[in-house]
Amino acid sequence: MQDSRLRGNDGGKARIAVRFQERNFMNEQENKVKIEARTLKGFRDYGPAAQVVRQEMMRKLEVVFERFGFFPLSTPVLEYKDILMGKYGEDEKLVYSFKDNGDRDVAMRYDLTVPLARYVAQNQNEITLPFKRYQMAPVWRADNPQKGRLREFMQCDVDVIGSDSPLADADVLACVCAALDAIGVTKYQLRLNSRILFTAFCESMQLNQEQSLEVIRAIDKVKKIGIDGVTAILVERQIPEPAIGQVKKYLALGEGDSALDGLATQVSVSLALVADTMRNFIALLKQQGVREEVIVFDPSIARGLDYYTGFVFEITLTDYPDFGSVGSGGRYDDLLSQFSNQKLPSVGCSIGFGRLFEAMEDQWVTSASLIDVLILNVDPAYTGLYVLLASALRKEGLNVDLYYQSAKFDKQFKYAEAKNIPYAVIIGEEEKSAGTVKIKNLQTREHVEVKMADVVSYFKSKK
Amino acid sequence: MQDSRLRGNDGGKARIAVRFQERNFMNEQENKVKIEARTLKGFRDYGPAAQVVRQEMMRKLEVVFERFGFFPLSTPVLEYKDILMGKYGEDEKLVYSFKDNGDRDVAMRYDLTVPLARYVAQNQNEITLPFKRYQMAPVWRADNPQKGRLREFMQCDVDVIGSDSPLADADVLACVCAALDAIGVTKYQLRLNSRILFTAFCESMQLNQEQSLEVIRAIDKVKKIGIDGVTAILVERQIPEPAIGQVKKYLALGEGDSALDGLATQVSVSLALVADTMRNFIALLKQQGVREEVIVFDPSIARGLDYYTGFVFEITLTDYPDFGSVGSGGRYDDLLSQFSNQKLPSVGCSIGFGRLFEAMEDQWVTSASLIDVLILNVDPAYTGLYVLLASALRKEGLNVDLYYQSAKFDKQFKYAEAKNIPYAVIIGEEEKSAGTVKIKNLQTREHVEVKMADVVSYFKSKK
Repeated sequence: MQDSRLRGNDGGKARIAVRFQERNFMNEQENKVKIEARTLKGFRDYGPAAQVVRQEMMRKLEVVFERFGFFPLSTPVLEYKDILMGKYGEDEKLVYSFKDNGDRDVAMRYDLTVPLARYVAQNQNEITLPFKRYQMAPVWRADNPQKGRLREFMQCDVDVIGSDSPLADADVLACVCAALDAIGVTKYQLRLNSRILFTAFCESMQLNQEQSLEVIRAIDKVKKIGIDGVTAILVERQIPEPAIGQVKKYLALGEGDSALDGLATQVSVSLALVADTMRNFIALLKQQGVREEVIVFDPSIARGLDYYTGFVFEITLTDYPDFGSVGSGGRYDDLLSQFSNQKLPSVGCSIGFGRLFEAMEDQWVTSASLIDVLILNVDPAYTGLYVLLASALRKEGLNVDLYYQSAKFDKQFKYAEAKNIPYAVIIGEEEKSAGTVKIKNLQTREHVEVKMADVVSYFKSKK
Repeated sequence: MQDSRLRGNDGGKARIAVRFQERNFMNEQENKVKIEARTLKGFRDYGPAAQVVRQEMMRKLEVVFERFGFFPLSTPVLEYKDILMGKYGEDEKLVYSFKDNGDRDVAMRYDLTVPLARYVAQNQNEITLPFKRYQMAPVWRADNPQKGRLREFMQCDVDVIGSDSPLADADVLACVCAALDAIGVTKYQLRLNSRILFTAFCESMQLNQEQSLEVIRAIDKVKKIGIDGVTAILVERQIPEPAIGQVKKYLALGEGDSALDGLATQVSVSLALVADTMRNFIALLKQQGVREEVIVFDPSIARGLDYYTGFVFEITLTDYPDFGSVGSGGRYDDLLSQFSNQKLPSVGCSIGFGRLFEAMEDQWVTSASLIDVLILNVDPAYTGLYVLLASALRKEGLNVDLYYQSAKFDKQFKYAEAKNIPYAVIIGEEEKSAGTVKIKNLQTREHVEVKMADVVSYFKSKK
């Protein structure tokens, strides 16, 4: 236990072990006050059934991200506090930060975007651009859990750093759509817009920057407050009347192809070029394999005004309209400027892993069957046989559990049921002497007798 | 953006986006002092090449854990501080703890064992026993990074809660050995001992509890200080001379089968029963598929005196003797008693993920090739073709990257080289008009011409 690295990399049990030596050998815990086992508000465990689903989701997402040429990146949970500060506006107060033992100001990861920027800036001489990375990892926000928000939740980001080609935007979006398809989410809408459209629109109305901001902010609210609500805001903010009229026309376009066509014909001819860019981008998305029916041009989507610089998008679930977006992102060019003089055009998307999990948890959990076979423990005398059989089945790629104690059948079946195991293998005296095995389908309650030598191939055929 | 859950589950970009609106629309970052991009001491990024290897390791380990019937569990990074306190002796000072925004004392996960105990106690009415779980997740220790220890590192634990059957011990060990085999670590030793052997041995010498502790602690040090060193300690601690003589005999046994045989014949006949138990356990391990040559009985291994209650074990790499153990664990019965009156016999093992990664990083990273094909961007006019081909290959399960800009060949080849991509697909004017595709093997620098229609099947055959 003297090797310096052992404590850092060996298991926790080793560490506990050493330290327990220094405590009283007598079992003093017996008389100790028990500590209430509980989790913090806004934090949750994912028990076996849920975690099986989450890991399955993660694996499927990883496969797709890599299929599109994105590499994984892992960054630490703790960062110097100054790396995170100045990035999140008033939400900065939601960052978990503290002084560590060395009196350093540290903070827990609040998102995956700032660590990405830090990583790229720190390694800019080694990185080959464009840098395509994905990262799936928890982040922490001291949000109000009363509102149903978790304080620890998984983020799942795909970004391309260092390319201004629309191919990069299309790559990110096609990848995210393929990722959703891969986890069985097929009914979604990819709602697209472009910051450049807003710029062109505001220029066409000859608005100054401040007015432009007001207009864009108001348009972004139309789904919640309607066109009249938007108009009321603009009147209140003293936007010139002709501009308000234009905004009404703009919002009356609605969404989809007709809205795209209407930009130049019904709002301003100066928007024709932007509309063409959007059409080309949509064509590119289709070539990339994004299904035509999921693509929706939505001129009301604004997203971060100081952040995004090109295409912006939100993904919503068709069957869960109240769920909000399960993915969002866009093109942004200032990510790195906070850490470096290098300016790198970038585009990225965050998938709302937690929300997708919530949407899918029910249907997945009930069907999840991690273990294929439970070998029952009928007679301790046959333990060797049970163990050998378990070992043989595992070598063939089956997930096998073995009941440790020779308990009553009832108890063993209940165990199988609790773990959603579909088959039980029974070898008692009768079977042993006949050289057979009883295989019980725990769903149908039917069973078959199979020769001992054929058990492995029986289950292989079921796999 | 009003949906309450959106902020909690949608991507970080959404959050940033909203907040950036409230900042100055003018790009004030231009003139800002840049923040130095750096990581905290004891923390590190895992860049793409390393992270590919780590994820590959994790996936392989997960498959094996599930093959042995272990389910995944995920617990939060932050726990109430009192959950962690009183568990790690003087190492408690290494726990990252702080007051959160709600003035709660919270602490970052220090190992995976205490959260497991907390989880089981908290859910004891819902959990079906025995509870078999694995967890792979980072933990944090404010250790001295000068000694090569990371402050954030991955733990990887497999435990069975609620069974006193040796089958459970064998299950854990067979699982861990199969896990090592699965990640290509085959040259290791599984060094076994039993706390019950120490108890029997100390009883045979008629030592009291305090003396027993001294003797066991000294024996545990024999690999570092030799038999003479152990003797010197025991003399200093005034252990009776006959006992010291017995300890010498015990240590002179060495290790392996001969040592096991010698327990009864050369040390004390009262150890015959314990020796038999060990023999039966070793037989069980072999039945479970553990290779005979890796199993070594090692009577000097003690591990945590107040923690372990039965079999104890350490796994060492044969080719890396200085590396220390890459896995350790044993049977322990008091895990839950800190949170609940329930007493559950348990057994578990921690795999030293970080150390195994270090041992294997070199050999894996050089061979890792995540992306199968790079489609070169020769002529922007053919972009649609490139994109369609990328999409077709991805649908067939190939990992495909597409160069976004039509840069010089040299630059594109360098990109492929940096990402370790084995093949490049070239479609220029010549190929386009001939209806062919040039496929270049980037290692051999050779190329073949393939009909456009045959590209997909060409790569499928390479897969």
